[in-house]
Amino acid sequence: MSDLTHFNEEGRARMVDVSDKEATSRTAQAASSVRVNKEIYEKIRAGEIGKGDVLGTAQIAGIMAAKQTSTIIPMCHPLPLSGIDISFDWVVKDQTHTLEITGSVKTTGKTGVEMEALTCVSAVALTVYDMCKALDKGMVIGPTYLLEKTGGKSGDFARPPEHK
Amino acid sequence: MSDLTHFNEEGRARMVDVSDKEATSRTAQAASSVRVNKEIYEKIRAGEIGKGDVLGTAQIAGIMAAKQTSTIIPMCHPLPLSGIDISFDWVVKDQTHTLEITGSVKTTGKTGVEMEALTCVSAVALTVYDMCKALDKGMVIGPTYLLEKTGGKSGDFARPPEHK
Amino acid sequence: MSDLTHFNEEGRARMVDVSDKEATSRTAQAASSVRVNKEIYEKIRAGEIGKGDVLGTAQIAGIMAAKQTSTIIPMCHPLPLSGIDISFDWVVKDQTHTLEITGSVKTTGKTGVEMEALTCVSAVALTVYDMCKALDKGMVIGPTYLLEKTGGKSGDFARPPEHK
Amino acid sequence: MSDLTHFNEEGRARMVDVSDKEATSRTAQAASSVRVNKEIYEKIRAGEIGKGDVLGTAQIAGIMAAKQTSTIIPMCHPLPLSGIDISFDWVVKDQTHTLEITGSVKTTGKTGVEMEALTCVSAVALTVYDMCKALDKGMVIGPTYLLEKTGGKSGDFARPPEHK
Amino acid sequence: MSDLTHFNEEGRARMVDVSDKEATSRTAQAASSVRVNKEIYEKIRAGEIGKGDVLGTAQIAGIMAAKQTSTIIPMCHPLPLSGIDISFDWVVKDQTHTLEITGSVKTTGKTGVEMEALTCVSAVALTVYDMCKALDKGMVIGPTYLLEKTGGKSGDFARPPEHK
Amino acid sequence: MSDLTHFNEEGRARMVDVSDKEATSRTAQAASSVRVNKEIYEKIRAGEIGKGDVLGTAQIAGIMAAKQTSTIIPMCHPLPLSGIDISFDWVVKDQTHTLEITGSVKTTGKTGVEMEALTCVSAVALTVYDMCKALDKGMVIGPTYLLEKTGGKSGDFARPPEHK
Repeated sequence: MSDLTHFNEEGRARMVDVSDKEATSRTAQAASSVRVNKEIYEKIRAGEIGKGDVLGTAQIAGIMAAKQTSTIIPMCHPLPLSGIDISFDWVVKDQTHTLEITGSVKTTGKTGVEMEALTCVSAVALTVYDMCKALDKGMVIGPTYLLEKTGGKSGDFARPPEHK
Repeated sequence: MSDLTHFNEEGRARMVDVSDKEATSRTAQAASSVRVNKEIYEKIRAGEIGKGDVLGTAQIAGIMAAKQTSTIIPMCHPLPLSGIDISFDWVVKDQTHTLEITGSVKTTGKTGVEMEALTCVSAVALTVYDMCKALDKGMVIGPTYLLEKTGGKSGDFARPPEHK
Repeated sequence: MSDLTHFNEEGRARMVDVSDKEATSRTAQAASSVRVNKEIYEKIRAGEIGKGDVLGTAQIAGIMAAKQTSTIIPMCHPLPLSGIDISFDWVVKDQTHTLEITGSVKTTGKTGVEMEALTCVSAVALTVYDMCKALDKGMVIGPTYLLEKTGGKSGDFARPPEHK
Repeated sequence: MSDLTHFNEEGRARMVDVSDKEATSRTAQAASSVRVNKEIYEKIRAGEIGKGDVLGTAQIAGIMAAKQTSTIIPMCHPLPLSGIDISFDWVVKDQTHTLEITGSVKTTGKTGVEMEALTCVSAVALTVYDMCKALDKGMVIGPTYLLEKTGGKSGDFARPPEHK
Repeated sequence: MSDLTHFNEEGRARMVDVSDKEATSRTAQAASSVRVNKEIYEKIRAGEIGKGDVLGTAQIAGIMAAKQTSTIIPMCHPLPLSGIDISFDWVVKDQTHTLEITGSVKTTGKTGVEMEALTCVSAVALTVYDMCKALDKGMVIGPTYLLEKTGGKSGDFARPPEHK
Repeated sequence: MSDLTHFNEEGRARMVDVSDKEATSRTAQAASSVRVNKEIYEKIRAGEIGKGDVLGTAQIAGIMAAKQTSTIIPMCHPLPLSGIDISFDWVVKDQTHTLEITGSVKTTGKTGVEMEALTCVSAVALTVYDMCKALDKGMVIGPTYLLEKTGGKSGDFARPPEHK
């Protein structure tokens, strides 16, 4: 596929016609992150252990946003998502504290779920920012990117390791 | 303010009580970006001149997402936004082609619009990704961060230039 | 005002900045209609008297759509509507049966509610069509137009009687 | 089918049970229009050529509204739309300037997409009105009607040419 | 199934993966109620006969809420509902006036519609409360519970009669 | 106020006109509950201590639903909520295990937030049901009722203690 298929003959946006595609099993996995200062890092970690779970709240936001992808992204097809899972990892080095976010989405549908996975991790990161911004507004979200996808006519995609 | 105010006495998430805050004028500006390959860069640029406007579609997605911020971010207060504007800039160097996105949001309300500005530019970037992903799934979104905010009791914020 | 104010300096859509406008009392009234065949006319009328109220369902759709206007119309400001009312009238002549729909919307806000009134009557008409389309798909909706508006800097508007 | 099937035995509205229907390929095409004055006509046309694309914004509104049809129209079944396309045509004669809007929707589902096509063109027309209303509030939307549908047990429908 | 399947290996909420489940026919029926005083009972009954139909409005709210279940309940899968029906019954005894609400939902999907049925009757009850609360704020909603479900691997469920 | 004010002169539903009311400080507090079996009780309790927090997820659902009240309840006015808080209590006696839910909502607006508080606790209870239903579908939600409200012309309301 070598063209911007989201445009019709008048050159304006359309939702691409996928009527003739098969409804097959598809998965996508995306990554984002939030770089926070040491104070926020410590408070989130403490919250994880007891209650006051920043990551738990962010995770729910990510799941709900994934389900809303086709209402947020104009040309995105509505898809009946069959599974959403999010995981976290902390990378602490050289005085930086980075929360790494991975979101996995599955469907049986006519188009892929790349946008659902990317929207999911974006909402997770935004919610972490929201819940910690009283402490520091200088947090940085992302980079945000697709890790891999499977299924569909365009074939599988896996991000080369050196670009992660 | 030195605490994670989004948690109540039981340690669980709440929507912070802002009843006693004044409804004052507030603004926020956030930045994101999409790094694309040369082919996508050229096609978007061509589209800008004639019809088939990727950026135009993305901009509308950003405006509509900003208005939905409080339904996407769980602890975010609903606010009657009074103005939303988005602008684009291309940075091309060293074989990289980066679309820089700036989103500005205004309100007269009891809380700030940082989340609205960040959600806005995130939706813009995600929509650019969606409309170009048939050409390359390796695009990278962000970093995404707050540029500045004005208004409210916690005072103004401006990102130090060296961190942009 | 002599320009398309929904566009920014780059020529792209924005949500107009109304931050400096006063929040004042504003009203708008819009009209639409559905032209139906005799069979549908008689069934709706019968439904009105007993139960199975097509118009009652359509009215609720109109009220709920009016509240969603800023999520349906991209550049529309969110406004806290303070009142919505819908009324119906049948015009039967020359073998045609026309349901006339009037929708009135009020707010105290920084922008007018013309779009809310127009969206309201559109949703009413669409719902009537939906509930009767098993009988005839040839129904015609509209014309749909603004009857009047009051409040706001641009002054009042009343549709000239000969254009109704 | 000779009855208002949207009502249950108590005479109240229900969402019709389509559980036993086949999920088959279905299409629908609807038409609406906006009659504008000469000034608006010229400004929209100019915008089409360069940037500031009223029709581009309206088209996105139409696509997003089509996807929301089952949340706007109370008794409408949710359907996974597989394609949405919108086109425009100008008819200028006798001092009138009319933007004609055609919306086409496809699905593989248990019910038809007539309401999605009608909701789509209604949202397009409303958005054109919204973006031009600073110039003239006297614009007229519609008539709005179904052009044709295919698929489903009730058979195909095509509007007789003399009624278009 | 003997575990809280909504949690992932990190112990946080996820949307359960149902990718490998069959899309089969499923139904669920739930019950709720609103206990009102005599004045409200009589006014609703009067409204039923003529116009001003509290129950008609509540029913539409229930149908629309059922379709929104997966946006209200975080871990709920989106499902294309194929039928929704609601019925009412009054139980008057010992000076109490109770509106009994039954909601039935059908789908062909990979998960059941228990939550859709429960959300449906909850929205019906809340809407009855809303429309009558000017007369008395002491109304009591519920108990709300599942009456029965059919379809799916976990088998059928029917509430024992003595627990209704 | 002695009438069903949600109906207009034609006897059909309307959104009551509150344009002339003052925007004042208002609060409401509502209660619901979920009666669960011993196994679910123990698993939720265990989850509270470590991770896998059923109540944390339910709480977020309640906060998000409260913000959506005017899109769920047809005649409800949209209100800019300024604070939402939810708390839990377990009552264990006579072999029954009941999770008691209290939701508090605040606004500065022209109408009260009773419906927001009731919708909030309803969504909390529904989410608890959803997350535990793999263990037992016989859980019972509610009764659900208003505990108290303050502010507004109709005065304060407090549920008599014997009716709690």
